[in-house]
Amino acid sequence: MAWSSRLGVGVIAFASGAAVTAFVKAASSDSGFTRRTFSVPDHKFFHSSERSTPTGDFSNGIPPYKVWEKDWDRREPCAADRRKSLRRGIAEDPTREVKREGTAIPTANRHLLFIRHSHFNRKEKKDEERGLTPLGREQAALIGQRLKALGIPITVLVDSTMTRAKETADIIASFFLGVPRSQTDLLRKGAPVSPEPPSRNWKQPQIYFSDGARIEAAFRTLVHRANPEQLTDSYELYVCHSKVIRYIVCRALQFPPEGWIRLSLFHGSITWLTIQPDGRVILQCLGDVGHLPFDKVTS
Amino acid sequence: MAWSSRLGVGVIAFASGAAVTAFVKAASSDSGFTRRTFSVPDHKFFHSSERSTPTGDFSNGIPPYKVWEKDWDRREPCAADRRKSLRRGIAEDPTREVKREGTAIPTANRHLLFIRHSHFNRKEKKDEERGLTPLGREQAALIGQRLKALGIPITVLVDSTMTRAKETADIIASFFLGVPRSQTDLLRKGAPVSPEPPSRNWKQPQIYFSDGARIEAAFRTLVHRANPEQLTDSYELYVCHSKVIRYIVCRALQFPPEGWIRLSLFHGSITWLTIQPDGRVILQCLGDVGHLPFDKVTS
Repeated sequence: MAWSSRLGVGVIAFASGAAVTAFVKAASSDSGFTRRTFSVPDHKFFHSSERSTPTGDFSNGIPPYKVWEKDWDRREPCAADRRKSLRRGIAEDPTREVKREGTAIPTANRHLLFIRHSHFNRKEKKDEERGLTPLGREQAALIGQRLKALGIPITVLVDSTMTRAKETADIIASFFLGVPRSQTDLLRKGAPVSPEPPSRNWKQPQIYFSDGARIEAAFRTLVHRANPEQLTDSYELYVCHSKVIRYIVCRALQFPPEGWIRLSLFHGSITWLTIQPDGRVILQCLGDVGHLPFDKVTS
Repeated sequence: MAWSSRLGVGVIAFASGAAVTAFVKAASSDSGFTRRTFSVPDHKFFHSSERSTPTGDFSNGIPPYKVWEKDWDRREPCAADRRKSLRRGIAEDPTREVKREGTAIPTANRHLLFIRHSHFNRKEKKDEERGLTPLGREQAALIGQRLKALGIPITVLVDSTMTRAKETADIIASFFLGVPRSQTDLLRKGAPVSPEPPSRNWKQPQIYFSDGARIEAAFRTLVHRANPEQLTDSYELYVCHSKVIRYIVCRALQFPPEGWIRLSLFHGSITWLTIQPDGRVILQCLGDVGHLPFDKVTS
């Protein structure tokens, strides 16, 4: 009915075809699905992977297929890992109360909540002078309130080393005392990759060249399925910048990364990615600002 | 600072690289951009369009490019249209107070707000018995309140002909008396295209075959840039179903349509697409449920 069902059993969400999160925990072996009448066909045989025009012929019911890269985070367990976990009784029956240390395949979900920093002083040039405005501080407090109200157990809070992200995170952190916190340069603002369609705000090639590798490094470092050692679901807050978040969302969903420009994020918005233990990724929401009254929504 | 700036001048949003909406109205000719130092390079020459692995070599700064299809809605004005509009003084200076009837190129934005119906009775089989639960009615009222509070001038309200969408729309409509309303079968629930990665909830091929064409028809009929005759921005509400919205978002953003399964929508969530007069598309938010208290969020 509420968050608890989403985060717990997840059967309702599954029934609606949303392929959500926690279901995987209850049925991480394939055995639960073999009873279905229709099994998943082999894509290589079934679909032409070379059709790529978005407005291709849809009326024949065959999509312009692009196969999901399962090992996108290079953490796909190998057969030896699976055997190891089987011996420990994990994969066969994840509901069994067993000592899970030492399993070789992931079993927990990672929920990554990306918060865009709030409204800041754009008049200055130096980063340290581009702090939050009073409105920005108010927005940050409203984010903190909303996250607190959701009742999700925040595991860690990471912010970019830029002033506006740090100040936003400071205010959010006051709602989550005791939660470990860290900063990283990887999440600093930047131009991830030259956008498509091209932006009128075109940047010098060397900007995309250097920022792009750094933001790609942020993606590869922070966004991946849980480690096998992670025993429970994590809820991780990342306070950073619009283009970084938009790029990460495209990469995580295996959508074309140059498409980041087609997404938009308001200040103080919440973007929620869930990474399931089998490597599936779900975007739960993008740019949610319902926690802000209409006159405090800025971009 | 607030919605007004986003919907009005839009210069702040543009400065942040979000390539938003109304800026286009102020500079729909190319002349405003030729003063920039860096012009947009020719993609065919500059990028290899055949690189498509999402985890390709990013460190060289060249993305795995897929060019934006400009004429995705088959409404790209031809040279003759542009000349016609130029003669009428539209494209040259859109701020001039001229009689705009008869212009041949679009000048208005379309804001399409897709609302997923709210919580409903899943225990019954027949559509007419699968109406909203008391919680669903409460959610619908909260959506209406939020949309009303945003102060956006809703132009039209369209809902799918299924009971749960109709009942959600009924409640929202009570906040927008006098707004024209209609229903369409095109927006009924369905399986748009076989998902990738494959769903555990696999459907019969004939379901994707027939639903797919119908939902694609919904996309092609409803989602396109404004007609040239449209003089002001429109804000259109569509109350329908999760998979329909997720598919439309992928198609509109020119992301792989089979990726709809990577998106998720809560009941009563708001998804906002903006279609600019030049055919660019921006996803302002996806699945926003900040207007619902934490104990009323369901999926």
